Amino acid sequence: MTTVSDTVPSEPKAKISTAVRNALAKHGYARLTTAKIAAECDMTEAGLYYHYDSKDAMIVAFLDTATGFLKRELADLDAKDPETRLRQACERLFVTYDDEPRRRVNIAVMELLSHAPYNETLREPLLDLEASNLAVLHDIVATGIDQGVFRDTAPDGVAAFLLAAANGSTGFYLALGMEDAGADLHDAVSAYIDSLVA
Amino acid sequence: MTTVSDTVPSEPKAKISTAVRNALAKHGYARLTTAKIAAECDMTEAGLYYHYDSKDAMIVAFLDTATGFLKRELADLDAKDPETRLRQACERLFVTYDDEPRRRVNIAVMELLSHAPYNETLREPLLDLEASNLAVLHDIVATGIDQGVFRDTAPDGVAAFLLAAANGSTGFYLALGMEDAGADLHDAVSAYIDSLVA
Repeated sequence: MTTVSDTVPSEPKAKISTAVRNALAKHGYARLTTAKIAAECDMTEAGLYYHYDSKDAMIVAFLDTATGFLKRELADLDAKDPETRLRQACERLFVTYDDEPRRRVNIAVMELLSHAPYNETLREPLLDLEASNLAVLHDIVATGIDQGVFRDTAPDGVAAFLLAAANGSTGFYLALGMEDAGADLHDAVSAYIDSLVA
Repeated sequence: MTTVSDTVPSEPKAKISTAVRNALAKHGYARLTTAKIAAECDMTEAGLYYHYDSKDAMIVAFLDTATGFLKRELADLDAKDPETRLRQACERLFVTYDDEPRRRVNIAVMELLSHAPYNETLREPLLDLEASNLAVLHDIVATGIDQGVFRDTAPDGVAAFLLAAANGSTGFYLALGMEDAGADLHDAVSAYIDSLVA
């Protein structure tokens, strides 16, 4: 999948990725058209098809860009100590309802995930995105265990639990607007991280 | 929303709900048609429209039935003691990859959740489903705290954390097939329940 987008120069790729992101946030995947992507940047549909041969290939470019962006953002967290890094990574992965652009993008990514069993083009970049997020969380927890900041626990399990909870909050909290449950979840995740501290 | 389906007699409602469930499991929401729903039961499309005036109203009937079914299933758990009840409820809510029918239904429900911001008809029954699941988990945890089985913690938070993790496993584990992460998650949830025990 990455080979598809890797053949496109970085400037149009970045521009089209941003347009896909904005169009997905506004319309979701089911109603997404290349005309709506073109409307988000100063390009024609023909211009889009010059670089990508399908709407899904444009979405792959967006996912690829988003994975890279999130990976860098999580690598560049301010804190050095693993406990604070884990809290900052969770603040980034657990999107709040008030953050409308990210809320809408996360809902669209959840929609893309639901198409993955039927859509091979989307499956690979979504696997890359989830694997990248798991790896970031794993590395923070593993480093914390090595340094004696966290008690001896399975970093893979903590990473899977936190990522599942972050992704799962997209349904009842971000898509349905159950704000009380969102606040309860935030507190429970914070208490869970407390419980990891040695 | 419930009023829509409540006007339909229980026999056709149950039959159509099962057909919607099977059709969603096979095709997902984006490709669902009333012809595909009709193909899952011995009814014509006209017969479906005699009871429900839209495809989404048929999905509401399915969600309403699923919420009731899951609520009864979780109320009828074998165990009496709260710790075992919580583990059994989680076994029910955390669907495994090998359970193909439930896996496919959960992926379709995730797709419905992604449409909730754009679709008022679907939003209400999805809110009912999530609220019902949260209430079941909350009540088990609250009872366990009252009985001194669980340590003093916030039952709303535990419920939101477990439901978010269960729902979130639908993406990376059920839709993308990341089976290692699914196994890691299972172990982490089990350890989390251990940590709740007084």
